[in-house]
Formats: sequence, structure tokens, C-alpha cells
Amino acid sequence: MYSQILANVARHVTLTPEQATSFTHLLRAQQVASGDHLLVAGEHTTCLWFVVRGCVRTYLTDAQGREHNLAFSTEGWWCTDSASFFDGGRATLPLQALEETSLLSLSLADLEHLCTQVPPFERFFRLLYQKGYQLLERRLVAMLRLTAEARFLRFHRQYPRLLHRVAQKHIAAYLGITPEFLSMLRRKHTRPPRS
Amino acid sequence: MYSQILANVARHVTLTPEQATSFTHLLRAQQVASGDHLLVAGEHTTCLWFVVRGCVRTYLTDAQGREHNLAFSTEGWWCTDSASFFDGGRATLPLQALEETSLLSLSLADLEHLCTQVPPFERFFRLLYQKGYQLLERRLVAMLRLTAEARFLRFHRQYPRLLHRVAQKHIAAYLGITPEFLSMLRRKHTRPPRS
Repeated sequence: MYSQILANVARHVTLTPEQATSFTHLLRAQQVASGDHLLVAGEHTTCLWFVVRGCVRTYLTDAQGREHNLAFSTEGWWCTDSASFFDGGRATLPLQALEETSLLSLSLADLEHLCTQVPPFERFFRLLYQKGYQLLERRLVAMLRLTAEARFLRFHRQYPRLLHRVAQKHIAAYLGITPEFLSMLRRKHTRPPRS
Repeated sequence: MYSQILANVARHVTLTPEQATSFTHLLRAQQVASGDHLLVAGEHTTCLWFVVRGCVRTYLTDAQGREHNLAFSTEGWWCTDSASFFDGGRATLPLQALEETSLLSLSLADLEHLCTQVPPFERFFRLLYQKGYQLLERRLVAMLRLTAEARFLRFHRQYPRLLHRVAQKHIAAYLGITPEFLSMLRRKHTRPPRS
């Protein structure tokens, strides 16, 4: 049950067996059915989630009622509404399971306890947020700088399996294009070479 | 010379006098004239900078040649092109001083050395990146969710002094609107109430 999350932590830091046990004792397992929400807008976020199996989208709805997907979190990814989780405000970024999803959650109090009591976690979460910051910065740059076609190709290169796993409307809402335009881009870039 | 950066660190962690000295020995002072670049696109970023005095904009240029300002860093803020700094790639986010600017810089090797050798820094940079991630997430949400007028009011509320300190074209390029529209919004929201 904990092998994936321990492997995720072990990518950055080494834990003693006792430290690993202190960690896993703080985690809570959670199951969410496909289509259900892990977090809805307006709630207070109390958890940082780790995806063991399944897929979660982080999204927002704009003033015109259009949905924008900020991220897809599959196996081995962490997700939450960070501003709400760390500052205690109401969530503005709902989290919805796109498949039957198994997660492990950690509360803010337990995260802070871990960082204070088990030094490798201070390092682990420093590296996790450092990497998260870079990815978000790149996402912002891609949104502002790249054409829709270049954003599609970047997505295809970065997350090749998601293109077949997530509904097209959700990928279109991540790329900021219509599902019809996404369909045209897919045909253009995935058709076999002419004989 | 180091009082501001030490106060910045002291907001999150407590250092012994020896730890403070180990830290300040790793910093390099730098002066940049108004209009000059601290980092140009295509270079390798080797520093994380702390602004002692002045103002730096982080920006990018899109395919149409339009500039988009991602952030303004004034006294007490840290800045760099994170993806380039941490992964060693070429910078895509130039940094330009908008005023005569004094900075202190820290190399990646020294940051890692500090985190490993002086435990409070692991915590400090964890909290710095955690906060940075939240701010960037909110920036992305504001871009996607808010109208231009709401983005202007948010900027005005968050950074009231910047509105008078930074050239209007740069604020417009941060908000994603034309300087003319910004001028109209400023008139609307800063004019005195009618008698």
C-alpha cells in the first residue's frame, strides 16, 4: 500500500525504517469514484494528496463558466489547492477524479510535524515544491509564449500516455483550445506517414 | 549590507551568529543600472538573486514579439529563472532592472551546501518555494479566471506602491492589457468621489 509513496520519497531522500514508519502512520487512504470530487470550490482544503492509482484533474471555472484544467495528477503525483492548504482559505481549485482513484493524504499539521521531527522531510518537501514551482513556471511560460499547436506538441511530448487516457474535452481545457481544434491537431500529428 | 537578507531569513527560521556568518560569506553583491539585464534569454542562470534595493522584472517575449511581465521583484524579494537555475538549461525568462538595483546572489552549489550543512536553510528554502508556488498558482488562476478590471484591482490591492513606481507599459504587460486600457482603469478607480 505504501510502496509507491515511499519510492517517491526515496527519489530525493533516504529514510531509516523507523522514519518510514513514522511517515506512513500519518497517511490516510482514500478512494474516490470516477467523476467524484476530492475537493470542491469554497471548501477548506485540509490535505495534500498523493495519487496511488487513477487520475485527478485540478481545474477552475472562469467568469464565463468555461472550465480550465491546470493539471492532471496520475500515479506518483501530489495534488492540492496550495493556497487553501497552506493558508487555510477556501479552495478555488476543485479536484475531480477522472478515473476510480486511490490516494494517500497528509494533513498540514502532520506535514509540519514531519518536517520538524524527521529532517529528511524538510529536504523532501523543499525539493518537491522547488520542482513544482519550476513546472508551474514552465506552464505559465507555455501559455503565454507558445501557439496552440506548440502547446499540443509539448503536452504530447511531456505526457504521451495522457493523450489516450483523459477525455479530449479535458485535454482541450488544459491546452486552452476547443475540442474540435484538438481533434484536428491530433489527426495532423498522429496520422501515419504517406506511402 | 546583509541586514535585509538576514531579516528575510529570520521571518521563517532562527540562525545562530555562526550560521548567519556562514550564509553571508556565500553571498555576492551585485549592482545593475536601470534598464540593464541581470539575465538574458539563452544564458545559463547560475544565481538566485535577492533584491536589496531597486526593482527587477521577470518577463518573456511571445511569438508575436509581445512582452509579458511575469513578476516584479522589489526590496526583500528573490528572483531567478527557476527551471534554468535548478536544471542548468538556458534561461527563457530574462530579468531586467527597472531601477538602479542592488542585489545579493547565491549560487546553486552554495544553496545546496547551505541546505545540507546548515539545517535551518533546508526549512527556509522549503517555505520560500512553498510560498512561491502558492503565489504562482494564484497568478495563473487570476490570469484564467478574472476579467482585466478584476486583475487590475487585485494588482492594486496586492502591490499598491508598484502602480506608482513601475512604468505603465510594464504594468500593462503584467496584466495582459494595453497601456490605454490600463490608463482608463486607473482613471476609473483612482479618481476622487464626486461632490
